Amino acid sequence: MATQRILDFLADRRPDGPCLVVDLDVVESNFNAFRRALPDSAIYYAVKANPAPEILSLLARLGSNFDCASVAEVEMALAAGATPARISYGNTIKKERDIARASQLGVSLFAVDCVEEVEKIARSAPGARVFCRVLTDGAGAEWPLSRKFGCVPEMAIDVLETAHALGLKATGISFHVGSQQTNTEAWDQALADAGRVFRALSEKGIVLTLVNLGGGFPTRYLKDVPTAEAYGRSIFDALRRHFGNCIPETIIEPGRGMVGDAGVIKAEVVLVSKKSVSDENRWVYLDIGKFGGLAETMDEAIRYPIVTGRDHEEKQPCVLAGPTCDSADVMYEKTPYPLPISLTVGDEILIEGTGAYTTTYASVAFNGFEPLRSYVI
Amino acid sequence: MATQRILDFLADRRPDGPCLVVDLDVVESNFNAFRRALPDSAIYYAVKANPAPEILSLLARLGSNFDCASVAEVEMALAAGATPARISYGNTIKKERDIARASQLGVSLFAVDCVEEVEKIARSAPGARVFCRVLTDGAGAEWPLSRKFGCVPEMAIDVLETAHALGLKATGISFHVGSQQTNTEAWDQALADAGRVFRALSEKGIVLTLVNLGGGFPTRYLKDVPTAEAYGRSIFDALRRHFGNCIPETIIEPGRGMVGDAGVIKAEVVLVSKKSVSDENRWVYLDIGKFGGLAETMDEAIRYPIVTGRDHEEKQPCVLAGPTCDSADVMYEKTPYPLPISLTVGDEILIEGTGAYTTTYASVAFNGFEPLRSYVI
Repeated sequence: MATQRILDFLADRRPDGPCLVVDLDVVESNFNAFRRALPDSAIYYAVKANPAPEILSLLARLGSNFDCASVAEVEMALAAGATPARISYGNTIKKERDIARASQLGVSLFAVDCVEEVEKIARSAPGARVFCRVLTDGAGAEWPLSRKFGCVPEMAIDVLETAHALGLKATGISFHVGSQQTNTEAWDQALADAGRVFRALSEKGIVLTLVNLGGGFPTRYLKDVPTAEAYGRSIFDALRRHFGNCIPETIIEPGRGMVGDAGVIKAEVVLVSKKSVSDENRWVYLDIGKFGGLAETMDEAIRYPIVTGRDHEEKQPCVLAGPTCDSADVMYEKTPYPLPISLTVGDEILIEGTGAYTTTYASVAFNGFEPLRSYVI
Repeated sequence: MATQRILDFLADRRPDGPCLVVDLDVVESNFNAFRRALPDSAIYYAVKANPAPEILSLLARLGSNFDCASVAEVEMALAAGATPARISYGNTIKKERDIARASQLGVSLFAVDCVEEVEKIARSAPGARVFCRVLTDGAGAEWPLSRKFGCVPEMAIDVLETAHALGLKATGISFHVGSQQTNTEAWDQALADAGRVFRALSEKGIVLTLVNLGGGFPTRYLKDVPTAEAYGRSIFDALRRHFGNCIPETIIEPGRGMVGDAGVIKAEVVLVSKKSVSDENRWVYLDIGKFGGLAETMDEAIRYPIVTGRDHEEKQPCVLAGPTCDSADVMYEKTPYPLPISLTVGDEILIEGTGAYTTTYASVAFNGFEPLRSYVI
């Protein structure tokens, strides 16, 4: 997944220290794949996945909309050229003063999952459109979501009815099937729930028009994943099944699926050692770890492909760890990672599929190490 | 643990957004407590716990030494007024160019745990003093360390012998009994191991002089912890047991124990909601979470004391979560946290014992949220 452009950049520039390089051509190709796969859905890029200005500008130019998690992200999307009408404030947890600020900036689409949040929006962004997030079970996701966001479908009916009563536009339903979701059928149950909420509110005279299908579209790490086309077909079938001839307006919020495979981290082997002469596994220490951008190796959830210059040589499993003095800064230990036996101090390696959820997860300066640098080319 | 000075600061300044306030008087009192408890040990403050310049300057003035994890931390300690002789480069994982840079800055004490690291130091900091870290089992620690650092005592003998052969000064042994270690006997086994290494090398004509007792001294979160005096007595007894009349020079590396209880985070309740009408637990969302500085709530390892303005009212357990769109950004769920039933949106709360391992753990800008601000008073 390291494109020739990325390899050339690294060869020419030889940046010192760990860094992420993102190839905008891959982002553009991913955007077009989503547009082809789901031609009737509006694409709202999940800014949190990678808010690099170059990525936001490209996507704004291509016609993308933006799913923002905070006022700062709203401001970044606007700075990249998006109009406020193309922005969704998709975080269900917002300070009322942040809602007011987003509303002043022209944003008029907000996520909610409880009556309290609806009341804040009614006060600080009167007349805005709101969609209510419902809980899904996330089965099939490599990084299943907790119950942090959303409410049960029955409660969503109350939430949207309250929104309507308070002068807001009760617009629709959202859900998220879990990050890195590889089961294309996962959207079916959530769409069945959404259909029920639509019908229940319709009986009360409130006509919803929008289903936010969320994200969860995976990027390819070590295993093959279904294509955007496969997701598109499966979602369209589910929409027909649960909404018949009244298929609602839909939006998708790809983040990882848009930028994950567009980025590669270049890192360096700092140390290779054993804990005792009889130790079976080597420990390989890199100059990047859990606190320098690879936070998603938490619980060994995501297993990134790693490319070395010695991959034609024999490999043996090793424990892979980061450079900080934090003993939790270990990426792969429960399932050791096979790397060439000849790998040695000073070797450069490439960690692929790292375009999403790396730069912004990096800690400010833990152990004095600077945050992950990034180059968007 | 919120001192009157911290409460006055918050009342006067009313800072917007989450922030950490550290009271230097508490840091000074902790330093003096360590000095009294272990009068014969040199104190090396673990800079990574909180590298705020004001804290480093105070400690430099009080006569502290500094345990640094990177060249950046070495530079911070120097900037705070420490001489290079008062600095230990305590990370066992170092790039050779960083060793060279530290050596140029005058640092001459380095940690190692394998022959490869010794070879780097011999090349890039010839003649430097090295101590070898040995593995301990960490039983009794609330945050037990992994096997990331250190080697078995038998290997430490080889490592230090190699150092000696390569012209370095084989100086001693270090270990770390685990963070937030509440068993004062935990140092005993590690000191027994250290004694064995001392004797084995002495028979080869290499005289070690230093035992680095590491950190692990706890701060008081919800449970009472032993006093610094109790640790001091227990460690002194173990030293006598394993070194007899030849008690070596010792150093300690308190981080959490030096600054943990000196800091308080002020946060705000952003939302209180339920997932369904029949939900037993409320969800309370704060404007700070796992990615904004409370990384050590990972696996619910550390349970911070939380103070609200309604603590005289009835409490009920709730799930406590952060403000980001990351579903892993939940602090306490497996063991819900009892908070006042009347707690509501906009309430300010204090999270105590947060002076260590918070500011630098904060992510750069995840979800667009700025890193944790800090005020040292």
